[in-house]
Amino acid sequence: MLQESLGLEGKCAIVAGGGALPLALAEACRTHERPYVLLGLEGFAEAGALKGHPHRWARIGAVGRVIAAIREEAATEVVFAGHVRRPSLAALRPDLYTVRLLARIGAKALGDDGLMRQVAAAFEAEGLKVVGVASVLADALAQPGPLGRLAPDATAWEDIRRGVEVAAALGRADAGQAVVVQQGIVLAIEAAEGTDRMVARAARLRREGPGGVLVKMAKPQQDRRMDLPVIGADTVAAAVAAGLSGIAVEAGGVLVLDREAAIRRADDAGLFITGAEPGSGAPRR
Amino acid sequence: MLQESLGLEGKCAIVAGGGALPLALAEACRTHERPYVLLGLEGFAEAGALKGHPHRWARIGAVGRVIAAIREEAATEVVFAGHVRRPSLAALRPDLYTVRLLARIGAKALGDDGLMRQVAAAFEAEGLKVVGVASVLADALAQPGPLGRLAPDATAWEDIRRGVEVAAALGRADAGQAVVVQQGIVLAIEAAEGTDRMVARAARLRREGPGGVLVKMAKPQQDRRMDLPVIGADTVAAAVAAGLSGIAVEAGGVLVLDREAAIRRADDAGLFITGAEPGSGAPRR
Repeated sequence: MLQESLGLEGKCAIVAGGGALPLALAEACRTHERPYVLLGLEGFAEAGALKGHPHRWARIGAVGRVIAAIREEAATEVVFAGHVRRPSLAALRPDLYTVRLLARIGAKALGDDGLMRQVAAAFEAEGLKVVGVASVLADALAQPGPLGRLAPDATAWEDIRRGVEVAAALGRADAGQAVVVQQGIVLAIEAAEGTDRMVARAARLRREGPGGVLVKMAKPQQDRRMDLPVIGADTVAAAVAAGLSGIAVEAGGVLVLDREAAIRRADDAGLFITGAEPGSGAPRR
Repeated sequence: MLQESLGLEGKCAIVAGGGALPLALAEACRTHERPYVLLGLEGFAEAGALKGHPHRWARIGAVGRVIAAIREEAATEVVFAGHVRRPSLAALRPDLYTVRLLARIGAKALGDDGLMRQVAAAFEAEGLKVVGVASVLADALAQPGPLGRLAPDATAWEDIRRGVEVAAALGRADAGQAVVVQQGIVLAIEAAEGTDRMVARAARLRREGPGGVLVKMAKPQQDRRMDLPVIGADTVAAAVAAGLSGIAVEAGGVLVLDREAAIRRADDAGLFITGAEPGSGAPRR
């Protein structure tokens, strides 16, 4: 079970992309008897997951209508949660509000994160209060140090440092946030395919011998109110299947969903999960 | 046909990894009646390719024996060419020389490129002259501007700039050198899987609509005497199969092998190939 803490007041609108995070937020609200509504983004949010909760559907290209829906629901705060892929401009079918927004911010020149920052700014310019997932699910943020029974050994720490270094370089360029490193070799880097598929690829690129670490970090300039990177029990399962020795996530920058199940799975398989400081990747050459 | 120019004197030892580059060098030497020998690295160099040329085999873990072989062959200059993956330390089975070399340079803390620089330094410390592939195949280096009939349009240039920016960030961290970008979205980033497989993955991640550019660059700190990144007709075929609109390579930093065939293939399929300056990726935000 996830331990939630609620730092919010009033009705909460959860703008919901894919994955388990929006539902975890909705359940936290329900548990704490806080009013909420899910605004499921078509093509991303999972219909089955939304069913048991108050929800509406919205198109990602219809930012104007999303804002109107939040006002109709009289929600006082907005959380963005879950995975969203930037669609092609052709598939976006933007409403008038979105057309103007894109014209202003020049979407094509931005990475995902730059775009999300601009969308948040647009919501705030409309008088809506955008709060972070972490303020609703504070206990889900990774802390420094081992989460489960196991801790990285010296060899794993060398791979973690290398992974943090590469992930930080990627993050500064607003591209990708996860890598797999084994014996100092960067096996795979995540871009648009998602962490689980990247980890599965790393399994096919592994060298003989022990080791291999998944490192996942927030982007240094990431607006932490917006969607933070997530791991969960599925991520651990992917790492186990790939024969990795562990997972390092940025302390304070990555959410661990379904924490107890994730830790149990890691403990059972002999994997470590550890929170690592961004500074632990400083080049030592 | 490749147009070669030879800037070398005396016998040339080609330390041969995988791919087409070692053979292109051997053929350039033969064409220009320069004495040469291929030192095929077991597990990397293609046996069939070496057959028609004077060659020996060597293990990548036996650096001492590679140096001894070069001396026995009385080669005056050494070229490293072709793709080599860093093996696991377990698979390396290092000879005594290699053990000492690794102890000195601390292989695990280095990326591929850092390691290669150290190997080159070790060869030079042994009195061998290490020269670059580009000095043997000067005409194979990409020049600025379009190589074939087509040139990137404004949309493609936006993707090229983004790709150059991400590839440069990766290169500075000594990890990866190729990315695919479409409509500003980084679809895929190369690590250990190689460019062709990365491009094939990008095809599955493409958004609707036109575009998609493969960007391949040398690492900024790369020792250019060592193995430079390469594209060839196979790379073009992969880009065509992936539905990309073109390929941008770093002018002066990437070798285009089998240039006429590569250009013909690109022209036939309506793809551009262009040499791009590293500075063209400067962030414009």
